[in-house]
Amino acid sequence: MKSDFSKKLEEKVKKTIEKYKMFNKKEKLLIALSGGKDSAALAYIMKKLGYEFECLHINVGIGQFSEFSEKYAKIQSRMLGCNLNILRVKELLGKSVNEISKARPVCSVCGITRRYLMNYFAFKKGFDVLITGHNLDDIAKFYFHNLFNGQITYLSSLRPVIPKEKKLVKKVKPLFFVREEETLKYVSLNSIEFNPIRCPYERFAKTKRYDTILNSIDLINKRFLHSFVRNLSNLIHPKEAEMKTCKVCGMPSNRDVCSFCKIWNRKEPLVI
Amino acid sequence: MKSDFSKKLEEKVKKTIEKYKMFNKKEKLLIALSGGKDSAALAYIMKKLGYEFECLHINVGIGQFSEFSEKYAKIQSRMLGCNLNILRVKELLGKSVNEISKARPVCSVCGITRRYLMNYFAFKKGFDVLITGHNLDDIAKFYFHNLFNGQITYLSSLRPVIPKEKKLVKKVKPLFFVREEETLKYVSLNSIEFNPIRCPYERFAKTKRYDTILNSIDLINKRFLHSFVRNLSNLIHPKEAEMKTCKVCGMPSNRDVCSFCKIWNRKEPLVI
Repeated sequence: MKSDFSKKLEEKVKKTIEKYKMFNKKEKLLIALSGGKDSAALAYIMKKLGYEFECLHINVGIGQFSEFSEKYAKIQSRMLGCNLNILRVKELLGKSVNEISKARPVCSVCGITRRYLMNYFAFKKGFDVLITGHNLDDIAKFYFHNLFNGQITYLSSLRPVIPKEKKLVKKVKPLFFVREEETLKYVSLNSIEFNPIRCPYERFAKTKRYDTILNSIDLINKRFLHSFVRNLSNLIHPKEAEMKTCKVCGMPSNRDVCSFCKIWNRKEPLVI
Repeated sequence: MKSDFSKKLEEKVKKTIEKYKMFNKKEKLLIALSGGKDSAALAYIMKKLGYEFECLHINVGIGQFSEFSEKYAKIQSRMLGCNLNILRVKELLGKSVNEISKARPVCSVCGITRRYLMNYFAFKKGFDVLITGHNLDDIAKFYFHNLFNGQITYLSSLRPVIPKEKKLVKKVKPLFFVREEETLKYVSLNSIEFNPIRCPYERFAKTKRYDTILNSIDLINKRFLHSFVRNLSNLIHPKEAEMKTCKVCGMPSNRDVCSFCKIWNRKEPLVI
């Protein structure tokens, strides 16, 4: 019974990877390993499917939560037998994420910083693909959030594959059609340890409040959320806006100076 | 206070009509008047805005519900001082909608029959625009239903304006951004009578079960449903499938014989 569920989930992820041509065994793969259950389940499944990869953990410096996150990312990568790269925001940038969050909400600063560092590291170190553990519940909540707030252009980043464009490496989400409860069951059946502490800012996260909508949808039909995400992702088209180049770091940006360099008041490109 | 709300709603509908270039005062307009509150509110608002139009009521023959629907459509059109055209399914086709509903669900037969007759009448009588009273709640529920059931092509009919194409007259929905509670308040403030009886099949309607999702969305933010519908309607593109022509009636169809002629076992075009 145990292996039956696990094998089916591994097969499902394999099909998603193949259907969306996410990557192949010749490409240099980097998995973002947060220490939580989703990216851990993803890395284990990828290992089972025979992929070689390195991992990247970003320690944003949110007290005990971040200490535990790093600890579990280390435990997981040791069990996986794969190389773990660690970027610590405090060491790299002088302050932690919540120390810099004065003008903007901390979740916004944290998101911008993590997304920038993940891509920057992958780009600088020559990885072909950046792989994240976003699950179906995450995607559905982001869809609702962006549809409710009119951020239609943001929707284009919520596809299973975002192809490489200039200095933005290819980003893929192999758990795009995997429910959160499935990754929870997988880590539990396979004795995979993960950070039991929740982020103290989680209750302020904008997407948290959409849980009730997901519950309502599940109450009608447990398969509906899957169809909703699949059909909506088919309606979304890639962004066609012309990208500028950040005057500070030289990475792609919507404005003259990118959000990362602006928030962190950067005067020169980061050296990693 | 009373006139304040009413004026604001009339202004909102006016803006929707203008923004989407739904119609102008030179076009020959037909409003589908069901006898219910939404189409009644729409017709009253259109009158206030100075539009000339005729109405069309379709009596599908669902017992007392349909008798009351026709009665209230007559009361409403008399108050509006506009011409009311009535098509009675039993007289036209020999049977009522629920007498024919053996192989298909009654709501499906009713929907196909009403949509066909509305367009057929508008086309045969030379109307430029067919105007229906679908409100924001209806649209949101249809969006969910189609996104959940993978009927992405159906989504393309859920836009504020469906332009004329061959023998399909232009169809518009001026209440696209009006909540159901707004039309209810409008008819009550303006002493507009409407059919108090609910369709006996309503509880079987597929869209009924999405009420809980709409309630969850309203609980988070009362303005979210509006954004959801507006943003999703912007993502939806017109259908590009090539239309065939029904061998029986000569109207546009996806198949050799259209759903209407198939359901009603038609051998020749309807004469109206």
